[in-house]
Amino acid sequence: MVLGALEAGGTKMVCAIGNEQGEIFEQVSIPTETPEITVPKMVSYFQSKKIESLGIGCFGPVDLNKKSKTYGYITSTPKLAWADYDIVGAFKKALSVPVGFDTDVNGSVLGEVTFGQGKGKNCVIYATIGTGVGVGICIDGKLLHGMLHPEAGHVLIRKRSDDTYEGRCPYHKTCLEGMAAGPAIEERWGANAKTLKERQEVWDLEAYYIAQALSNYILTISPELIILGGGVMHQEQLFPQIRSYVKEMLNGYLKTEELEDLEHYIVPASLNDNQGIMGCLELGRRALCQEQE
Amino acid sequence: MVLGALEAGGTKMVCAIGNEQGEIFEQVSIPTETPEITVPKMVSYFQSKKIESLGIGCFGPVDLNKKSKTYGYITSTPKLAWADYDIVGAFKKALSVPVGFDTDVNGSVLGEVTFGQGKGKNCVIYATIGTGVGVGICIDGKLLHGMLHPEAGHVLIRKRSDDTYEGRCPYHKTCLEGMAAGPAIEERWGANAKTLKERQEVWDLEAYYIAQALSNYILTISPELIILGGGVMHQEQLFPQIRSYVKEMLNGYLKTEELEDLEHYIVPASLNDNQGIMGCLELGRRALCQEQE
Repeated sequence: MVLGALEAGGTKMVCAIGNEQGEIFEQVSIPTETPEITVPKMVSYFQSKKIESLGIGCFGPVDLNKKSKTYGYITSTPKLAWADYDIVGAFKKALSVPVGFDTDVNGSVLGEVTFGQGKGKNCVIYATIGTGVGVGICIDGKLLHGMLHPEAGHVLIRKRSDDTYEGRCPYHKTCLEGMAAGPAIEERWGANAKTLKERQEVWDLEAYYIAQALSNYILTISPELIILGGGVMHQEQLFPQIRSYVKEMLNGYLKTEELEDLEHYIVPASLNDNQGIMGCLELGRRALCQEQE
Repeated sequence: MVLGALEAGGTKMVCAIGNEQGEIFEQVSIPTETPEITVPKMVSYFQSKKIESLGIGCFGPVDLNKKSKTYGYITSTPKLAWADYDIVGAFKKALSVPVGFDTDVNGSVLGEVTFGQGKGKNCVIYATIGTGVGVGICIDGKLLHGMLHPEAGHVLIRKRSDDTYEGRCPYHKTCLEGMAAGPAIEERWGANAKTLKERQEVWDLEAYYIAQALSNYILTISPELIILGGGVMHQEQLFPQIRSYVKEMLNGYLKTEELEDLEHYIVPASLNDNQGIMGCLELGRRALCQEQE
């Protein structure tokens, strides 16, 4: 199979060609401008490669409901040029191949479940913590949608009593994204997160909030594995601190093998930052198989 | 089919006979004493009815992992006579029929999805709020297990600033169960919940905590329907208050048809308190079909 993969982000569009084993033959990155400028560039890239199908993992919110009139649209994004844009329709029309479609984070969790450390696991969470917080969930090999798709970056959390920061989510103030995404770290501490590496109190508080959200994910959907990615998680000192707070917060209530071995339960992404684009290859493969059924 | 159903609770065991349409022909209730006393009574009831299979919805925690050596066991329950008890094994041995097994709340959500208002929906949550808080989740017709099973009654929540109550969960203090189950209401207000019906502040605070947990469930797994049962939810004035707080907490961030119509999104159980036992009939039916495959 020659599969196309598109990881559609707010600042860049990563386009790749690969196969059903997750091998990436080549990839290019195109800056995200408007659909009028950016989409034709991607279309001509994919046309020249003679792909059999395309998988798109897209920044959200997106409409994933196949019964909906606006299935395949980017919906109410603050990136206004892309709001209410029929991205699936545009590629289907231009390329005449099957198009698989999901959120970017669902793409990442699918990459890890198909080709990475999530293989063989029935319930896996992927959370990316960067300029925002996104969460993808894969259950029995299927990406979780429900009425929309997970938006678990916005779960409401408890503020720690020593934290006076007000939170910056325009909807929920002190949700996880409002308290712990990169911009919140920078606003709270008045410095770029990368320059704060040595400030222990920064990462202790960050780990506290991430652990709180993870504890609630664990209590709610009981994942077998939690993978953390995104720019903030490049601060690798966070991992042991997050695990330690999760242990403290769950406080022995759940007794499972996984929780006895948190080092292999809460882990960094394993596919050299290719989990997203590899997940898009799998989205493309699935779309092709569905078409052929 | 003649199916047996057992809703195993900490105070009573409800045993019923029914069919695959969810029709209950008869049912009896047996007090929960020790396995030595109670199980033989249930066994002889089911033996006399010539059931073809049995479905058990059981108080937890239970081991649902079919690969585990202790699959089908009640595990670390505070009801010590039942701790580490092989309830599935006991019935399989005595009755020689297939036995389906899950948590009591997963049984309830399965009843609603198979025979009630959850029919045709891909992602449904059932939460029971009574002496404890339990949550069952059904995704694509399958009950969610993950590494264990949902324990979402224990999600950590924010204390409201005017609430001085310390919370009574022995593990998490101020988790949902610790703050909002029946015993917490009684301890906080110093009176039996049933005598507090007219005290608006009691139910306003209760609705606030339940809504907070529901908002996080919605953000995490994006259910298409949320069903609330259990003794506390007999205070029907809670429903409009919970819906109103959920709307306030989500604050317009998620835009879906379901959230535009909260009256049909957050709803009471619909099967005359038979959702649990009807779910057990379906667990029994599934076990029989699996055996025949």
